[in-house]
Amino acid sequence: MSKVAIIGYGNVGYHLAKRISSKRHEVTIFSRTQSEDFILSIDQLNPEAFDFIILSVPDGDVKSVSDSIATSEAVMLHTSGANPISDLSKHLKHGVMYPLQTFSRTKDIDFTAFPVFVEGSDEGEKDIFTFVRSFSNDVRLLTSANRSKLHLAAVFACNFSNHMFHLSEKLLADLDMTFKDIQPLVEETVRKAMELDPSASQTGPAMREDEETINSHLEMLKDEQLKNIYRLITESIQNSK
Amino acid sequence: MSKVAIIGYGNVGYHLAKRISSKRHEVTIFSRTQSEDFILSIDQLNPEAFDFIILSVPDGDVKSVSDSIATSEAVMLHTSGANPISDLSKHLKHGVMYPLQTFSRTKDIDFTAFPVFVEGSDEGEKDIFTFVRSFSNDVRLLTSANRSKLHLAAVFACNFSNHMFHLSEKLLADLDMTFKDIQPLVEETVRKAMELDPSASQTGPAMREDEETINSHLEMLKDEQLKNIYRLITESIQNSK
Repeated sequence: MSKVAIIGYGNVGYHLAKRISSKRHEVTIFSRTQSEDFILSIDQLNPEAFDFIILSVPDGDVKSVSDSIATSEAVMLHTSGANPISDLSKHLKHGVMYPLQTFSRTKDIDFTAFPVFVEGSDEGEKDIFTFVRSFSNDVRLLTSANRSKLHLAAVFACNFSNHMFHLSEKLLADLDMTFKDIQPLVEETVRKAMELDPSASQTGPAMREDEETINSHLEMLKDEQLKNIYRLITESIQNSK
Repeated sequence: MSKVAIIGYGNVGYHLAKRISSKRHEVTIFSRTQSEDFILSIDQLNPEAFDFIILSVPDGDVKSVSDSIATSEAVMLHTSGANPISDLSKHLKHGVMYPLQTFSRTKDIDFTAFPVFVEGSDEGEKDIFTFVRSFSNDVRLLTSANRSKLHLAAVFACNFSNHMFHLSEKLLADLDMTFKDIQPLVEETVRKAMELDPSASQTGPAMREDEETINSHLEMLKDEQLKNIYRLITESIQNSK
């Protein structure tokens, strides 16, 4: 049983607090906004009272929040994919636990179903590994440099694919259709990509070099930015063959 | 019970043949390559012997194959999202049935789980509707012009999102990781997009206007085309807010 402070109560903080406390750790939540009664203000944080302090604040605030906390025996952690471990180097024991998942307040998350990537300072790594193991069964070591690369890959697979969904949603609105209308198609696309690998499951006019359809699609797109996206991705699909 | 000729035995022809014959229609398969014993050569097609002739050939061949077939009482159909109904206008009764799904030879397809969009010539529409109803329970009328728009939306949602997966797969290879390693993240992204709509579920550095992470990602990308894709999609996400 560890005493854990979670700073920040956004989507990640919320789900971490729920999961970690369910594993019998003692969790206290701190926040700058202190939106609910059981959340303490970050001014009330006494680092000496904790074994682990987890920063689940926006990436841009990780270093400044870490620097604002007095040094102690506690292990200082952040959960960001993009920030280097060195953001926390003020603290002797420090490290990263990056859950490779996307979190929403309203959706339950199965913590046994995705990997958590960890990294620690010499003094902190063993404690971090043991701690993360207590609530995840897929814990993997990864350096900051490689974690940035993984985060970049995740941006393509998730944020950028979601934007393709969003652009599709806009085009469907013209037809009085919603994204739900193409749910079977999207889900089958993902199933295929998982079974065959995305490289092997690519289909569509770009892949078929179907210039006639490509040109008629470009004509339909009135927005210049959308045209550019269509052109560039089509070209990239053809270069990837 | 109808007599159905299917011309072309690619992924779509294969699954159509399976589904339509399971609904007690009499299906004969014709192909130019005639790769298996039960497949007849297209030269052997006698249009008079069929109620429906379905072209599941590449989009670019729809018109020429249709034009090469003698006129008859049979209803001529194609299954393409991109081709207009007029490609088949040589034949009195003609039309389109566009299944909004992606087909792979090796994966079973649940025909009750996606819509089929139909369109017919004055003389053919009623027959087509009744026929498609016999093997699909979600049949919707759609004009050629709107079907092209739907196909364009599907290209963004499926072909382009799959390419984002492919680019991610390439970046993961650098880390000795496969696309399977980020399966929980991709699946949760799609679940969120379906529950909340893609517009509401957009996350990531572009959405957060996190310039530091965006710049460090651009530095990591050595390939100019990949850099351009990253820049353009990031910009488009920010313009869509």
